Amino acid sequence: MSTAVNLADVARIAGVSPATASRALSDHPHVAPATRARVWQVATDLEYVVSPEASRLAGGSTGRVAVVVPHLSRWFFGSVLEGLESVLRESDLDVLLYRVGDAAERHAFFDKLPARRKVDAVVVVGFSVGDDERRRLERIGVDIVAAGGQIASYPSVRIDDHAAGRQAVDHLIHLGHRRIAMIAANDPGEDAGHPAGRSSAYYAALADAGIGVDDRLVTTVDWGVEQGAEAMSALLGATSPPTAVFAHSDEVALGAVRTVRRAGLRVPEDVSVIGIDDHPLAALTDLSTVGQPVREQGEIAGRMVVAGLRGEEFERAVLVGTRLVIRGSTAPPRRVRRGGRRVDA
Amino acid sequence: MSTAVNLADVARIAGVSPATASRALSDHPHVAPATRARVWQVATDLEYVVSPEASRLAGGSTGRVAVVVPHLSRWFFGSVLEGLESVLRESDLDVLLYRVGDAAERHAFFDKLPARRKVDAVVVVGFSVGDDERRRLERIGVDIVAAGGQIASYPSVRIDDHAAGRQAVDHLIHLGHRRIAMIAANDPGEDAGHPAGRSSAYYAALADAGIGVDDRLVTTVDWGVEQGAEAMSALLGATSPPTAVFAHSDEVALGAVRTVRRAGLRVPEDVSVIGIDDHPLAALTDLSTVGQPVREQGEIAGRMVVAGLRGEEFERAVLVGTRLVIRGSTAPPRRVRRGGRRVDA
Repeated sequence: MSTAVNLADVARIAGVSPATASRALSDHPHVAPATRARVWQVATDLEYVVSPEASRLAGGSTGRVAVVVPHLSRWFFGSVLEGLESVLRESDLDVLLYRVGDAAERHAFFDKLPARRKVDAVVVVGFSVGDDERRRLERIGVDIVAAGGQIASYPSVRIDDHAAGRQAVDHLIHLGHRRIAMIAANDPGEDAGHPAGRSSAYYAALADAGIGVDDRLVTTVDWGVEQGAEAMSALLGATSPPTAVFAHSDEVALGAVRTVRRAGLRVPEDVSVIGIDDHPLAALTDLSTVGQPVREQGEIAGRMVVAGLRGEEFERAVLVGTRLVIRGSTAPPRRVRRGGRRVDA
Repeated sequence: MSTAVNLADVARIAGVSPATASRALSDHPHVAPATRARVWQVATDLEYVVSPEASRLAGGSTGRVAVVVPHLSRWFFGSVLEGLESVLRESDLDVLLYRVGDAAERHAFFDKLPARRKVDAVVVVGFSVGDDERRRLERIGVDIVAAGGQIASYPSVRIDDHAAGRQAVDHLIHLGHRRIAMIAANDPGEDAGHPAGRSSAYYAALADAGIGVDDRLVTTVDWGVEQGAEAMSALLGATSPPTAVFAHSDEVALGAVRTVRRAGLRVPEDVSVIGIDDHPLAALTDLSTVGQPVREQGEIAGRMVVAGLRGEEFERAVLVGTRLVIRGSTAPPRRVRRGGRRVDA
């Protein structure tokens, strides 16, 4: 036997998670027979010896799944949670809820969880997980699933942020806008910054349309309505303000709309505004947006957890589609009417 | 010994919950010494004999609290949950989350929970619990706390719905309105119907102002923006439409505002609208409302749970204050300007 072979090697070569490999090797009842056979075959081939500790941990199914979210009062996270809870409940798995609002809370969560072996799997909703934290979870054989984001190579369900950003910015370009601002939004609890794909989409769309980037039209704020409102104030104060604004989220976009109106300007006649999400607010306030299915991402993450715990095969990287929802907050710029005739204001 | 004496008798006479009484009698470590002494004294006086089953159950502290909510994607419930989670986490209690969207899910929850003794306490957020369900929880010695509502005589934290309703309707009356409509909102998952206090406040305020009730101005809908919008359509179609509308919640009020505007009328010039909650939407959309502290209700419920599990004294019926927030959606009716002069439109 080679002492260099560990559970992670067996799992990788068998094409399953360390958690599933661990369960398969401890003859856990919920592992599919084919999976169990494959894992055992790989373990035998590699002359892997099950450590008593790994076996004990894998055997102790808790029937609980930790769901870790940065926010609870925000629609996106509540909706993902609602989808997750419903699927896990159907499979008789209980949801242990952890809100980790900032880095300190997140570290505390990852420090405490393994020591007590409270859960069989962890679903991380909408934030990234550091390498140290991942290693800690892997060591104790806990499945990880990412919902509304992506974490290394773990199973994940999310939207394609770049594609969503293109839908929004291309819509503004097609309407005839050339001075297009972007309000990027950081989640304050998130190390990784704002969704990079949404920003890269902005630059790519402008480049494809032959529109030069004006740095004064790009701003990054913390996520929120008020922050969107302030960012818009700064943009309106520029010598040559934008005729259209792409905001990274609907709530930021709605702050921008409020500022435009308070400045005595009209949406969309003077400034078009588009967000991302299709938050319930968007329909209420007639905001154009790029819609994403949110509850569904929770449901898919839930099904990934269930499949993973059973050792069943499943698609490990699901991208859910987004769609352009054109409402009343976007229109051609005032000085370019249909047909291309310029009508100076 | 009297066979008629049970744990509930001991608890009632000792002035503690059955759960606390049970823990006190099983020498649970987290019961305050004074409480334990009092419970033992009562039990001795009554010649109460601890049943082995009750003792076993109380001894098995799980370190978990079930939080049962009807909705997760709605701001109110997410905010209560956020407050609850933070307080319980501080005391090292885990939150097991159960969403029970309708009566069937609620029954399933109460059927399954006791059999497995998964939690030490149950916090019910924003809905009522039937007598059968309460008895089931009591029997196994689980503390119950109600947040955002009231359940029998269990510890609860909530607003005074009648007082909140008065703040809203009195505001409209003070502005000079006399044709004031009410859109009451039922939670579809709730047996008990809409908050009765908010409706009684409407009738009481009108009576105090000497305004007769016009049944055509009172309507009840399921909770939601769309339902508020539809209710407003019906009210505007009346032969003598209202000059002001009191909605039971901000989201219903915002639906009403949308209908008023789509009908080509102005808010507040033609119709004033006020809600209850101070939802983040209200500030964004300039909606007058009666604000309630929401996250704080979750925190208070969390502290009640912690105190109850420790056998400490705590205030068992907390009413948190509400406040009138006057924004741009309410104004004097067009035909009655300040000073009482009538100016016909």
